[in-house]
Amino acid sequence: MPERIGFIGIGRMGQPMAANLVRKGFDVTTIAHRRPEPAQALEALGARIAPSLASLVADCSVVIACLPSSTEVETAVLGPGGMLEAGRPGSVFIDMGTSRPASTRMLAERLRERDIAMLDAPITGGTRGAREGTLTIYVGGAPDDLARVRPVLEAMGQTIVHMGGSGTGHVIKLLNNALSLSSMALLAELLPLGVRAGLEPQRMIEGLAAGTGATNQIPGRGSRILKREFEAAFQIVLAHKDLRLAQELAQEHNLPTPVAAGAYLSFTLARGLGLEGEDTVALVKVFERIAGVEVKSP
Amino acid sequence: MPERIGFIGIGRMGQPMAANLVRKGFDVTTIAHRRPEPAQALEALGARIAPSLASLVADCSVVIACLPSSTEVETAVLGPGGMLEAGRPGSVFIDMGTSRPASTRMLAERLRERDIAMLDAPITGGTRGAREGTLTIYVGGAPDDLARVRPVLEAMGQTIVHMGGSGTGHVIKLLNNALSLSSMALLAELLPLGVRAGLEPQRMIEGLAAGTGATNQIPGRGSRILKREFEAAFQIVLAHKDLRLAQELAQEHNLPTPVAAGAYLSFTLARGLGLEGEDTVALVKVFERIAGVEVKSP
Amino acid sequence: MPERIGFIGIGRMGQPMAANLVRKGFDVTTIAHRRPEPAQALEALGARIAPSLASLVADCSVVIACLPSSTEVETAVLGPGGMLEAGRPGSVFIDMGTSRPASTRMLAERLRERDIAMLDAPITGGTRGAREGTLTIYVGGAPDDLARVRPVLEAMGQTIVHMGGSGTGHVIKLLNNALSLSSMALLAELLPLGVRAGLEPQRMIEGLAAGTGATNQIPGRGSRILKREFEAAFQIVLAHKDLRLAQELAQEHNLPTPVAAGAYLSFTLARGLGLEGEDTVALVKVFERIAGVEVKSP
Amino acid sequence: MPERIGFIGIGRMGQPMAANLVRKGFDVTTIAHRRPEPAQALEALGARIAPSLASLVADCSVVIACLPSSTEVETAVLGPGGMLEAGRPGSVFIDMGTSRPASTRMLAERLRERDIAMLDAPITGGTRGAREGTLTIYVGGAPDDLARVRPVLEAMGQTIVHMGGSGTGHVIKLLNNALSLSSMALLAELLPLGVRAGLEPQRMIEGLAAGTGATNQIPGRGSRILKREFEAAFQIVLAHKDLRLAQELAQEHNLPTPVAAGAYLSFTLARGLGLEGEDTVALVKVFERIAGVEVKSP
Repeated sequence: MPERIGFIGIGRMGQPMAANLVRKGFDVTTIAHRRPEPAQALEALGARIAPSLASLVADCSVVIACLPSSTEVETAVLGPGGMLEAGRPGSVFIDMGTSRPASTRMLAERLRERDIAMLDAPITGGTRGAREGTLTIYVGGAPDDLARVRPVLEAMGQTIVHMGGSGTGHVIKLLNNALSLSSMALLAELLPLGVRAGLEPQRMIEGLAAGTGATNQIPGRGSRILKREFEAAFQIVLAHKDLRLAQELAQEHNLPTPVAAGAYLSFTLARGLGLEGEDTVALVKVFERIAGVEVKSP
Repeated sequence: MPERIGFIGIGRMGQPMAANLVRKGFDVTTIAHRRPEPAQALEALGARIAPSLASLVADCSVVIACLPSSTEVETAVLGPGGMLEAGRPGSVFIDMGTSRPASTRMLAERLRERDIAMLDAPITGGTRGAREGTLTIYVGGAPDDLARVRPVLEAMGQTIVHMGGSGTGHVIKLLNNALSLSSMALLAELLPLGVRAGLEPQRMIEGLAAGTGATNQIPGRGSRILKREFEAAFQIVLAHKDLRLAQELAQEHNLPTPVAAGAYLSFTLARGLGLEGEDTVALVKVFERIAGVEVKSP
Repeated sequence: MPERIGFIGIGRMGQPMAANLVRKGFDVTTIAHRRPEPAQALEALGARIAPSLASLVADCSVVIACLPSSTEVETAVLGPGGMLEAGRPGSVFIDMGTSRPASTRMLAERLRERDIAMLDAPITGGTRGAREGTLTIYVGGAPDDLARVRPVLEAMGQTIVHMGGSGTGHVIKLLNNALSLSSMALLAELLPLGVRAGLEPQRMIEGLAAGTGATNQIPGRGSRILKREFEAAFQIVLAHKDLRLAQELAQEHNLPTPVAAGAYLSFTLARGLGLEGEDTVALVKVFERIAGVEVKSP
Repeated sequence: MPERIGFIGIGRMGQPMAANLVRKGFDVTTIAHRRPEPAQALEALGARIAPSLASLVADCSVVIACLPSSTEVETAVLGPGGMLEAGRPGSVFIDMGTSRPASTRMLAERLRERDIAMLDAPITGGTRGAREGTLTIYVGGAPDDLARVRPVLEAMGQTIVHMGGSGTGHVIKLLNNALSLSSMALLAELLPLGVRAGLEPQRMIEGLAAGTGATNQIPGRGSRILKREFEAAFQIVLAHKDLRLAQELAQEHNLPTPVAAGAYLSFTLARGLGLEGEDTVALVKVFERIAGVEVKSP
């Protein structure tokens, strides 16, 4: 009997991911949130719309959540009509958002009482990866549960990496984002410094792209900054939240993170100075303002 | 008339670079420093050995310095028998080390008085790049002077990037190293955190290499850490010096660098805790010790 | 009818505070924890010992908790036999520890349902202040509730400062400790620097005590360092916890704290490098080790 | 034969200090700088005005400099008509500004060649201390030289603290300012946090003044912030410079300073965000802006 997929959280990332599931022939049920349009678009592709969370979780053998934070996931699991109260024994709950590992482990334990498996399966690759089905998916949880839902995950992502037990998917996601966002924060502080110290912006980006300090993202981010393309693919307010989760993880283990702490500070400044709704590359504006220069193409 | 090349500073990087010049047919003169062996090895390949700095600079039309810091470069230019006192008018002085941009501009100005051109041409690519002639060379100075010595530089490096006026080569080098070393510092603090939070080391490195936070160096550095390969290719004490120069550059311009400052702190700790002679990847040991775990292959 | 005081948490601070209450004629009931001696000593002074938490809270009109963290307070309030389950309607619960303000507000709200008032009344002044009854007590909660228990608090402290509504006592306590511990962290990093830069330790302390940077604690802390008196009055592991709470408060409000974050990092290092059980003044050892000097009397 | 005092640098601090010397009967010669008024005011009290630096240093047995930074002091000593060229053998040069210790030691050594003694004698106590002659003066240099000029220093300051050899006065001054300014930076970041977390500003200051975290300056600085008194007694741009010198001292010795580095960052932000001309207490505005609150009296 084929799996019946429930999909909760059809925002900027979740909607195209659910669409890929429908297009690849999965039986998908979703639920409308604030605005009706995203659910209607999925319905047009062939998805069902459930009248309530309780009915969605009661009807589905695999429930996927793509929600903003642990708070919303905890509500979907522990709240009224949620997975714990109304979910099906024998089903699998998959949290594809960026949650707190300690919360993930707690939820997995609670769901186990009702014979519901839980996987954490956070994603990386941005809205483009979500649309094109090329996401990297980090998975924490039992190997058997992953084997069972692997075809479902492969409909949404290209690379599935099993990290270990419950919560390890969320841990690696936080490390990945700390790496990626700290690199962004470094660029944001160094580029205006380079301009103040006499470098021509375009050549500076080319020079960095040719050096040992280059990252996967330097030419891309650098060229967006040069062209002043700051519309949000990944908002500063969300990046700030991810870095805060990484700080909390380090605090939980009483470990120092001098570099990631610096990046967290920079995003906190950006958020406090009114850039919260812009893309992470707009972090450079904080440092441009202090330096009194702009990093842009001639 | 072909250029006559003088090469000062034949250490871990300079020696293989000079050897490449000799092998590619350039007329190279060098000078022995502490130990006679590096100069003798070059002599065996066909280089000359000058009896003194004064005679080297007096005889050569292109003088290349590959020295540890601005202090040594200033001595080679301003000191007794140095470039300013004994160099040939019409010659070119090339500083291929990682120097302070303000010192570089000062030296270029002083040399101009005696009709000697100066280029800053720092390198990136490590000892392997030096041996194989695949370095990236960042150049600051006048386009005509670069055109004149370009064949010389191409004998040592694969990519020559002209950044702008005097000192800009050294500026981009500091930015590149700040990027590269801050990435190293991030890895050093995040990997032990990942292990403490339950990740298996090998899978953690694979996971990060598959994510958006990956850099040019993640699989390489990660695998060296997993195999505990800490012999020095780039010593912590030198990396620390480069990060200090980047901090000084930011201080000179009154700009904040929260992330690079965190990396500078980490390298300062490593240096103070006895790791100064090990490779930069050994920075992880500081955080392993605090975390009470090791990031190594099973 | 006089108040009947229940006192939970008779450790290094709580025991002498409870003793002061007994000596000043209050009717005090306590409960033994791990070791029987502290409770027996209070019994010898005239206190009662309750057989269980439930019986203590059921019998007392004012219950004082002097516990290590919010976790223990939450257990005492929400756990089996705790204040919520077994406490007397009309009674007052006073948390004199250093707790998380958000937890405090949550507990106050829960207790209100059962007509139990809650005050947060954290203390500052150390074990000496506890013994001598000279503590400063910061109070958060309703003015009427404070008025009712003021005589009780005055038996333990000299200065009672009402800060505002529920949780505000804990907020000011976190700010106070962030100030005090960051000052300690500053001393710890600056004194070894001064010695390395050529200052004689004793004169350095005298010089700082005479300057504008002096704090309430400079001659005291400085002289303990000079005499190498590191036995714990306030352990590094507890100071580290307080600074973490201050960091969490800032994170909750998305605010940057560059200085307190630096102090938190230093205490994290000290904790990770094996100094967790020593007094906060022992933080200097981290920096002495890096500097290769000792700050001590000739 | 009484000393003849030359006084260079009659700005906000130097002018009232020189005036105290004149009033107490010393024979004082000064020199006009940008504006004629400060020198004219001293002349009206009884000072002479020298036509040039060279004539001032040639005529005086004690030359006092109260200049903004090492750059100006180096010019006064090493520049044309300066102390080295035109000063009197057997005279004493006193640098009362906040200079780089390494520069101080270098200048002392150079002057010794010409049999001129040098003392570093930086001051703390603000413009009010300068007017009222109640400054604390930290002295580095030989005891005999200090003994000789002690009466001169006592005319300007109340407390004279001999720290050790040349440069030690400047070292302790940097430590003192790092302590004082980092305390200011802490207040600046914590007060808006307290307000956001629910504290009433006035009571918050009173609470902190009663606690263990209080400093010499908390009630004073706190009350200036509450009353929004930000006119400059000690400008942010100068405070920023002093913290940079402390950072440079730590860098010179390869030592970490996590707390002072945080304070340096905060002042760098303040300077870059347009507050450079305001008093150090205005640093709070950076954090108020991010927090969206003001710390002011009701």
